Order: sequence, then C-alpha cells, then structure tokens
Amino acid sequence: MKNRYAIINGTFVLEDEAKILISDLSIQRGYGIFDYFGTINSRPVFLEDHLDRLYQSAAKINLTIDKDRAELKEMLQQLIEKNNLPDAGIKITLTGGYSEDGYTVAKPNLLISQTAYSFNKEDFHKGTRLVTYNHQRQMSEVKTIDYLQAICLQPFIKENNADDVLYYDQTDIRECPRANFFIVTNNDEVLTPSKNILKGITRKKILAFAEFNVKEAVINLHALQNIKEAFITSTTKNVLPVLKIDGNTIGNGMPGEITTKIYNRLLSVKGIAG
Amino acid sequence: MKNRYAIINGTFVLEDEAKILISDLSIQRGYGIFDYFGTINSRPVFLEDHLDRLYQSAAKINLTIDKDRAELKEMLQQLIEKNNLPDAGIKITLTGGYSEDGYTVAKPNLLISQTAYSFNKEDFHKGTRLVTYNHQRQMSEVKTIDYLQAICLQPFIKENNADDVLYYDQTDIRECPRANFFIVTNNDEVLTPSKNILKGITRKKILAFAEFNVKEAVINLHALQNIKEAFITSTTKNVLPVLKIDGNTIGNGMPGEITTKIYNRLLSVKGIAG
Repeated sequence: MKNRYAIINGTFVLEDEAKILISDLSIQRGYGIFDYFGTINSRPVFLEDHLDRLYQSAAKINLTIDKDRAELKEMLQQLIEKNNLPDAGIKITLTGGYSEDGYTVAKPNLLISQTAYSFNKEDFHKGTRLVTYNHQRQMSEVKTIDYLQAICLQPFIKENNADDVLYYDQTDIRECPRANFFIVTNNDEVLTPSKNILKGITRKKILAFAEFNVKEAVINLHALQNIKEAFITSTTKNVLPVLKIDGNTIGNGMPGEITTKIYNRLLSVKGIAG
Repeated sequence: MKNRYAIINGTFVLEDEAKILISDLSIQRGYGIFDYFGTINSRPVFLEDHLDRLYQSAAKINLTIDKDRAELKEMLQQLIEKNNLPDAGIKITLTGGYSEDGYTVAKPNLLISQTAYSFNKEDFHKGTRLVTYNHQRQMSEVKTIDYLQAICLQPFIKENNADDVLYYDQTDIRECPRANFFIVTNNDEVLTPSKNILKGITRKKILAFAEFNVKEAVINLHALQNIKEAFITSTTKNVLPVLKIDGNTIGNGMPGEITTKIYNRLLSVKGIAG
C-alpha cells in the first residue's frame, strides 16, 4: 500500500493518508457511484466506455462531476505515471459529499485510487463455481457503491462450496454482484440477461462480436439444467468459465469450446497475449 | 460544526477532523450499519433498545463491535459531557473497515457523532405529506446505512409536493425511509405494517401502549382511501401526523384525535413536556 498515490478532489495524496470526513454521504447513507477500468502496460482499456458510464451513473443519482472529461483523463494519466503500475485497475468513486444534515446531497467528493492487477492465464482454466440466490439489486442499471447483499452473502457462498453468487429474480437469471452472466445453449446461441442488471463494458464488447451468435434474452433459472457452457465477464475476470452452478456440473466441467473462443477474441481486442 | 467532538474507534476527535481512509467498506461498497438515539437534558432516551438493535444489526451483517455494552455506554456518556449538547441526537455507525481488496470485510470502524436536535412542538401541528413509491428495501429488518433509493427520490418527492416517500411493495404498505407508518381505521384500530420493514424503537413503544388498540397488520395500498388518521414515527419525529398521501387529504386534514393522544402519551414516556 505504501508510497502509492490516490487522488481526492484533484489533489494527489498518499493512499495511506487518503481520508474523507465521516459526514460524507457514502459513509452516512451508502450514497455514491463508481467505475473501474484496467490498464495494460500503462494503457487504459476501454476508457471511453467506462467514462461514458461514470458520467451516466452520476447523473442518474443526481450527482455532478466537477471535472470535464479532458480534465479527468489528464488526472488519470498523471496517476498512471506517478504510481508507475503498468498493469493495474483504477477506481473512480463519486460520493454524495459532506452533508450538513447527513441526508441531503452536498458537493460530491471524487476519489480515485489504483490497485496493482495483472492478467493471469491460469484463472481461465480454474474457472468458477456459482451458487444461485433470489435477489434483485436496487437501481441495478446504475453502477452504485451498493454491494450490501453481496458482501453479506460471503459466508453463504463458502458454505455452498462456491466462489460467487448468481442473482435471480423470481425465475429470471440476472447477474453476479461484480460480473455479467452468459450461457451457451445446445444450439450454440450465446445468451445473456437483457434487463435489470448492470450492463458491463466487457459484456457490451462481447455482444458486438459478430462471429458468434450473441444475444440478450430472458434466461430462466430452470434453463440452467440444460446448457452446454456458461461464463461470467468483467473488467478483471475477462471471460471466466462457470464450471458448476449450485453444485451441478456445466457441460463436461471444463472450459467450453465457444467460451474459449470468446475469451481469446476478448484478449485479442484488449491487446493481451493469451 | 466547530469544536464538537466525534469518536472514531474510541478516540475523541474534532468533528471537522473526523476522517477515515477511503479504503473503508462503507465508501467502497456501502457496507455498514448504524443506530441513532436522542438525548433530552443530556439523558439518553430508550438507550437500551437502541443498543440492543445496534448489536443485532452488526451481527446480521457479520460485523463485530469490539466494545462491550458497558464500554460503549461509558464512551457515549463522555461524549455527552464533552460536547455539552443537552438536547441532541447521537449516531453510532459501524462500517466494514479498511478492506485490503475493497470487498472483503475487515476490522470494523466504529464512528460516533452527535448533532444538536431539540424537540419542536410546532412540527406536530404542521404534520407531513407523503407520496407513495413501489420499493422494497433490501435487508429491511437491519438498520443498514443503505438509503440510496430514498436520497435518489428527493427530486421526485419535491415534484409531488410531498415531504417524504412512503414505500409499498406490490400492494402492501411498508414504511418511510426513516420512519414507521401507522393508520387509524374507522373502528379506531391503530395499525402498522408487520413485516419487511425496519422495526423502529418508537414503533415498539407505541405497540406497547395498552390503552390504544394498536396492532401489526398487512395494510393494503388501496385501504389508504378509507382511513380516519395516519401518522409516522421515529426518534426525531416522535409522532408526526400524515395530512396528505399522494395529494389526497387524510381525515379532515388536521392532526387526528387518536394520533394526538398517542403523541401526548409518547412525549410523557420520553419525559418531554408537550
């Protein structure tokens, strides 16, 4: 942690000293949004998509970012240079600010921090195991800081020998707390839930891969019993094969053929040697 | 704000300097719980009830308070003496702590702050106007810091000439974001929603008032068209008459008879001269 910089409202501060007042609405009322993008060899990946979503998220909860896009990009570039972590994740958080009455939105605080993160090919082969849980995230299409249910479910995930939770609402599959969900049907259709989810940037890229038959769809919880492959996607996970859901093996329990092709295609778009 | 103290993990700090690191899970993931009680002439009101709920809330989201009840009460007493604000509200917040990976629960941070707040008899006569909104709070029976939806709805509340929002789920009335809801029926029954709500301490006290016919019940949204009186309750609001819901006047648009009796009874229990 030491000697790494973060940025609070435009000012560079050492991460170990990066503090905000407890009157901030994130602490008082869980009120804030964020976005998170990766860098590879100090080059931001899909930055414009992430900044589009950041400004949209802010607007959706009535917060304004007092830096324009050029200023924000300049700050991000300075952080990348100053910290000299070529492969990393950068998180931009916007909170409700120092509220006088602990409830009314004030001037937002803009917090930017960086974490070392590097691509690891082994993750793909290990895959992941999910356990389903009935929960619809509030304001799911906005990238808010609300992960209350997800973090509270960590013991439940462990008890079920899983790595993460897959939310469904009534009978419709939604998403993982930090990743989108895809299935490959027996007809080689690649389907991902269409609504009441956070629309991930990796998800968006994959939906545009014309060489695969990728579509948004309603995916019924019971349909999971009859699929060829499944995978989840996120900025850090890229394409991660789902090998088990609720203890049931998907396909032959190994990363599937189409999943592998989509994974390789994504790495090539991101400029990662797979 | 100046010269008032807050307490962070047992250490007294000036409120203007009361800060925590941005790695805290409240800021990163909206992860925390709290409780809030009032003092009258430096005497805490219903303190044991609030502390019961505080420890219960912490346990429900897998956090531990590293002070026992006696230590916590001693700290609260010191704060009351040090700040010398006889009529005030004290908020105790417990967050997920400084998480290394920004997701996993760490050693919780315990934040205590005090705000001047005094009883105002005029509030009762002014009453309040509510606008209904379809929303079920997640983990509603735990006093979490999640007020994302409520704060986001502030413009909606203003546009509807209301003072606060009344949540319902499908057709069942739930609660206001920071207050419980009661109706008085044409049979003089006093009813309050029974489930999927935060069970307020003022609500609990009123449910125990044996001289009124107070019960928990399922209250249908459409039943609001045919009630005599309505009121909301909270630590700061005490009993606040609801004069309008969705623009429709309740009763004769004035604080009702039973509401007034319950209000006076509550003030007497709290030791406030009404």
